[in-house]
Amino acid sequence: MSERVGIAILGAGIFAKEAHLPAIQAAGDKVVLRAVYSRSEGSAGTFAAFAQSTLNIDVPFYHDGGDPTKSLDSLLAREDIAAVIVVLPINTQPEIIVKALKAGKHVLSEKPVARDVASALKLIKTYEEEYKPKGLIWRVAENFEVEPGYLFAKKVIADGEIGKLQYFNLSLVAFVDESSKWYQTPWRTKPEYQGGFLLDGGVHFTALLRTILPSPITEVSAFASLNKAILAPHDTINAILRCADGTHGIWELSFGSPSSTRGALNATSITGTEGWIQIGNTQKDGKTHIKVDVHKGDETKTTVLPSCGVEKELEHFLELLGGRDEGFGEPRSVLKDVAFIEAALNSEGNLIKL
Amino acid sequence: MSERVGIAILGAGIFAKEAHLPAIQAAGDKVVLRAVYSRSEGSAGTFAAFAQSTLNIDVPFYHDGGDPTKSLDSLLAREDIAAVIVVLPINTQPEIIVKALKAGKHVLSEKPVARDVASALKLIKTYEEEYKPKGLIWRVAENFEVEPGYLFAKKVIADGEIGKLQYFNLSLVAFVDESSKWYQTPWRTKPEYQGGFLLDGGVHFTALLRTILPSPITEVSAFASLNKAILAPHDTINAILRCADGTHGIWELSFGSPSSTRGALNATSITGTEGWIQIGNTQKDGKTHIKVDVHKGDETKTTVLPSCGVEKELEHFLELLGGRDEGFGEPRSVLKDVAFIEAALNSEGNLIKL
Repeated sequence: MSERVGIAILGAGIFAKEAHLPAIQAAGDKVVLRAVYSRSEGSAGTFAAFAQSTLNIDVPFYHDGGDPTKSLDSLLAREDIAAVIVVLPINTQPEIIVKALKAGKHVLSEKPVARDVASALKLIKTYEEEYKPKGLIWRVAENFEVEPGYLFAKKVIADGEIGKLQYFNLSLVAFVDESSKWYQTPWRTKPEYQGGFLLDGGVHFTALLRTILPSPITEVSAFASLNKAILAPHDTINAILRCADGTHGIWELSFGSPSSTRGALNATSITGTEGWIQIGNTQKDGKTHIKVDVHKGDETKTTVLPSCGVEKELEHFLELLGGRDEGFGEPRSVLKDVAFIEAALNSEGNLIKL
Repeated sequence: MSERVGIAILGAGIFAKEAHLPAIQAAGDKVVLRAVYSRSEGSAGTFAAFAQSTLNIDVPFYHDGGDPTKSLDSLLAREDIAAVIVVLPINTQPEIIVKALKAGKHVLSEKPVARDVASALKLIKTYEEEYKPKGLIWRVAENFEVEPGYLFAKKVIADGEIGKLQYFNLSLVAFVDESSKWYQTPWRTKPEYQGGFLLDGGVHFTALLRTILPSPITEVSAFASLNKAILAPHDTINAILRCADGTHGIWELSFGSPSSTRGALNATSITGTEGWIQIGNTQKDGKTHIKVDVHKGDETKTTVLPSCGVEKELEHFLELLGGRDEGFGEPRSVLKDVAFIEAALNSEGNLIKL
């Protein structure tokens, strides 16, 4: 067996705890969590205690509390840590990503790649010019890219099972109020980046289309609005989009629903000349699964796969450190998701070439 | 009781038989069907026989078969016929509408008002300048404008039950193949007008939004395509639209589905700050009904009303002949539906002001 990769998690919030920690556990003996960092000593300590109680692992925690031996610099100076997973507020990430790269660590950072296209390009340029040549790897954690259910749908389409693609429709309307655990994350309550939840959550749904469709999305026209004041600056996008091969579709994303029942109409469908597929979530054995229905004529073939994108993205990242690259999480790929949201927020109904 | 209005149906196709004839019957003693005309003697005769067998009424039939006493001119010369219902191919209607007006008849003509905006404006100008001043009435039969279920939805919104409107989503994907009775109508098989079924059927769905929404649709951006060769020139539109009050929405219309099962995702929803409504069709006692669900919080209030727009449009037309005008079927109102389809077909993703 190859050596276990020593990693650290930078960030101790909800997603670090609920998604990345279990993914590390699932990776088994390929990886060992050697540290956690959070700006706040309390959060870092809580994360470490949570890891201890749920996974029975001892994780030294680092923070900005003043003790230099417990600082982020100290963490990054450790030679037994080869890579870091960055799960921090959107606006904080770029600086920390560069800091980690500078310290010689490989980086897997949460989506979006950055707050906007300009910041993302600056970060990508820095990486490509200064750190990539040194063999350092930076990838963005876009779990929708590696979700087995979505990759199954991609294969159904690529295999021509529904014929030549015609049009698609993605509709996701979510209910968010002050009691939502995501809303209560302070940096999400008052987001200092375009789109609010539309950027933070929306990139997943452009990544979904980008993953499944055989041709890149090259044009978008959209209206954006704010319907729930607490979700400023925007909470809703209605968009039409077109791919290089002429396939076109509809993209509706809103976090501004007045009621959770509106989600009953959420659906993602892709229609071809020979059939159509529907992609959605379903619960099975208490866990989220991806359900793919392939419809041809009057017949429907259903495939249900466990949702495990976060585990898969870590798995691929670790394989990449071992030299096997399948291209997942490429900064220039996930940049397209931010570019799409940015275009949709600014389109005002005008056609924007991506 | 006031005198029964003597009317004639010009056109003997599917919709004349299956919708207008029953509507005339439902109007009871307010109206009497005095004649039917079709270009073909066979069709006119079949219609008359159908009326005889189903409604037990004797309807003299007129046609272009050569007998001058049976010609359209002879029909229009009859003094016991005050109004005509025109149910003819889209491209034939304008000439016949003008002919009927010239003969001093009131006219209720099937949607769309004309094949395109230019033809419609020409027709409207002719009517407004030459026939309206003479007291002649011309209205367009847009049954969605007077469908009780849609008017109920309009009232729910107007009464503020779902708060301030935010966004809406209308998705209608239909399956049409060579065996469809509509497709087999020769003028629909090879349509000599823009959009094919998208114009013919699509105007209903812009009329639906126009009827329900409190503010006029003023902007559209769309992609149009042809996915089933038999449905040329176009069979699919993906559009975003915005109203004067800033409310925006999505409009997906396709007759190019590869399978009838895709219709399972069809839905029309309008979301406001306090709730949302869903509008759809349902079958009850073997008849089509309109179902309106009003969702507030976790609660849903459902109203189901029989679909009877064609009956209602005749009822309103007859009331109008009696002097009571509620504005339904105004040529300049239904022109907006053609303008919307025309804009969507030509937009190529660019914003068009309506």
